[in-house]
Amino acid sequence: MENFVYANPTKLVFGKNVISQIGDELKSANISKVLMLAGGGSIKKNGVYDEFTNSLKSRSIDIFELWGVRPNPALEHAEEAIDIIRKNGIQAIVAVGGGSVIDEAKAISIGVDAESLWAIYERREAPKSALPIYTILTISATGSEMNSGAVLTNYKEQKKWPYGCPLMYPKVSYIDPSKQYSLPWNQTVNGAIDAISHIMENYFVMGAAQETVVSYNESLMRSMVKHTNVLQKEPENYDARANFAWIATMALNGYSGIGVNGGDWATHMIEHGISALYPHVAHGEGLAIIFPAWIDYMKDSKPEFFTAWAKNVWNKDSVADGIEAMRAQYKAWGSPTRLSDINIKKENLEAIADNILELSRPGKLKSFDKADIMNILNLAL
Amino acid sequence: MENFVYANPTKLVFGKNVISQIGDELKSANISKVLMLAGGGSIKKNGVYDEFTNSLKSRSIDIFELWGVRPNPALEHAEEAIDIIRKNGIQAIVAVGGGSVIDEAKAISIGVDAESLWAIYERREAPKSALPIYTILTISATGSEMNSGAVLTNYKEQKKWPYGCPLMYPKVSYIDPSKQYSLPWNQTVNGAIDAISHIMENYFVMGAAQETVVSYNESLMRSMVKHTNVLQKEPENYDARANFAWIATMALNGYSGIGVNGGDWATHMIEHGISALYPHVAHGEGLAIIFPAWIDYMKDSKPEFFTAWAKNVWNKDSVADGIEAMRAQYKAWGSPTRLSDINIKKENLEAIADNILELSRPGKLKSFDKADIMNILNLAL
Repeated sequence: MENFVYANPTKLVFGKNVISQIGDELKSANISKVLMLAGGGSIKKNGVYDEFTNSLKSRSIDIFELWGVRPNPALEHAEEAIDIIRKNGIQAIVAVGGGSVIDEAKAISIGVDAESLWAIYERREAPKSALPIYTILTISATGSEMNSGAVLTNYKEQKKWPYGCPLMYPKVSYIDPSKQYSLPWNQTVNGAIDAISHIMENYFVMGAAQETVVSYNESLMRSMVKHTNVLQKEPENYDARANFAWIATMALNGYSGIGVNGGDWATHMIEHGISALYPHVAHGEGLAIIFPAWIDYMKDSKPEFFTAWAKNVWNKDSVADGIEAMRAQYKAWGSPTRLSDINIKKENLEAIADNILELSRPGKLKSFDKADIMNILNLAL
Repeated sequence: MENFVYANPTKLVFGKNVISQIGDELKSANISKVLMLAGGGSIKKNGVYDEFTNSLKSRSIDIFELWGVRPNPALEHAEEAIDIIRKNGIQAIVAVGGGSVIDEAKAISIGVDAESLWAIYERREAPKSALPIYTILTISATGSEMNSGAVLTNYKEQKKWPYGCPLMYPKVSYIDPSKQYSLPWNQTVNGAIDAISHIMENYFVMGAAQETVVSYNESLMRSMVKHTNVLQKEPENYDARANFAWIATMALNGYSGIGVNGGDWATHMIEHGISALYPHVAHGEGLAIIFPAWIDYMKDSKPEFFTAWAKNVWNKDSVADGIEAMRAQYKAWGSPTRLSDINIKKENLEAIADNILELSRPGKLKSFDKADIMNILNLAL
């Protein structure tokens, strides 16, 4: 095991009908004016918006609403939020939505007291402070509700960068799994694939030294497949939604990466390159396409470990069969699993590779150069 | 899954040579005067005392030393510490040792600002505030380094009560697994059994609704057996010590009990009754004796779940075989597994049962009356 520091101050309030508790929580923190950040209107259909606003109104807390967070949250929209916060003396942000909304809230939180938010994302400025963030999660997927990272896209420059620091942990996150009953099926699938991918980013850099973590990561991946299969037939199965939600949180709150100093994350960086250039591609779709290719490309770097993955997660005797089982499972859920499924062709690959390398060389198990990235993209065609 | 709130603010600093970081941590919290709490002299032999004191001296932090914490920490000793703290304006407690030392530090921390510490333990007074606690863990077992509970014994009244509240979370806990190389074998064994028992206290109140947590709890139990077996042959195997330490922390930092509102804890309460009357009995020994009997007594309450436990943890096809496999494993590690092994006889049992029931009826899967407790004690003879 490598040395590590674990500290995660986020409080989770998890279960049926918990959203209405947020008013008391904000009141007890002496917060009387918040910015509500949201995406589209789904939170008006599933009851989350009413439960949230009623809770705050009953405690006389003022709400400024900013809608329109995009699936890959945009720098420009975050800057708009920062303006509203500065002009109105807003004391906290409540992100109501999925990982995109929470990510944007985190970016906003460090942007309020910054010269330039994008300069922070480009590592040219350091964050000084952060507005407190509260989240009401409506799509379990990214784990953003209990970590300190946030991805932001600069559409003008076609750049999608991750950033994170301890200031960006949410204070409190509310997760009511029953509010996810009405999610479109493809969003549930993308969430499952995102969570499994987060575990794999940490898992594949491990070995016998982290046996305990390897072992529970395998159990988390198996459980995610199990509960997603239940949800494919029974979208309103509470326990399946709740287990799904807890796995997605645990996949990226530090526990899946105990004993290693950072995961691999090459697959995520490659996916970011794809969705920076093709913003219609959902994050989970990109991961479903790239991760099998990444495993195929890396499998000989530590054959025993990859073989154990195939056996312990997919009950297959070879890595090749494990990869095929994963692709078949993702396909059975309706996900694309090849670049050709999302209309990306051989002639588009080089631009993707160049975009990725603008930030840094991705990968920990192997630090990738352009040839490595091109090889993986070709395996994913 | 039942609704739950998860919040654990303790920061863990884990790995080789991390203890020397504590001086900087205390300095950054503006702490210049601490009480060091410790048990016997083992921390002078394994280097922990020197590493700790040098780190504080180099930052000009004053240390008041109080030694002599007992394996079941004593109210009287905690009160002595409270006196020292009050007289000297001490700002923080550093617990250097195992779970007993950390538990006593937690009790002290809420006692400084209380009328009567024991009144808090008897639920006649509520804690108002707590002195900050830092811990340097030298025996992985109780999980006390990352939770808010602490057991205290009133030897005069022969009472051993648990208490816990959010004020009692340590600020920072340092875990250097290599400092546990020199532990006597029986302390390693007691730690393994304690951690497995903590997981079981949560695990056995679960069912299909908590499948994810059930599944990783099983993986944690299997891993603990695996790494303890390694340590029996290679006490200085770093990775085995590190995995062992992480499992022991995770067994009681909230993760093993996600999705249930509190575990069973009858076995622990019965063990507390035993060691209140027989203070020479180590906590892990008492658990090794009582848990197999508890499983035997409760197995018909949900036969499928107990059968799955036997299969998934011990690879046995029946609960009876699972119990025997557990007893055989504990025995192979040198632990007692019967009350007769520690010289407790049939005629002693009633006094134990009466002692336990003085605080409350133990058990969640079943709320035990005196007859239940007597039945379990008889099964453990």
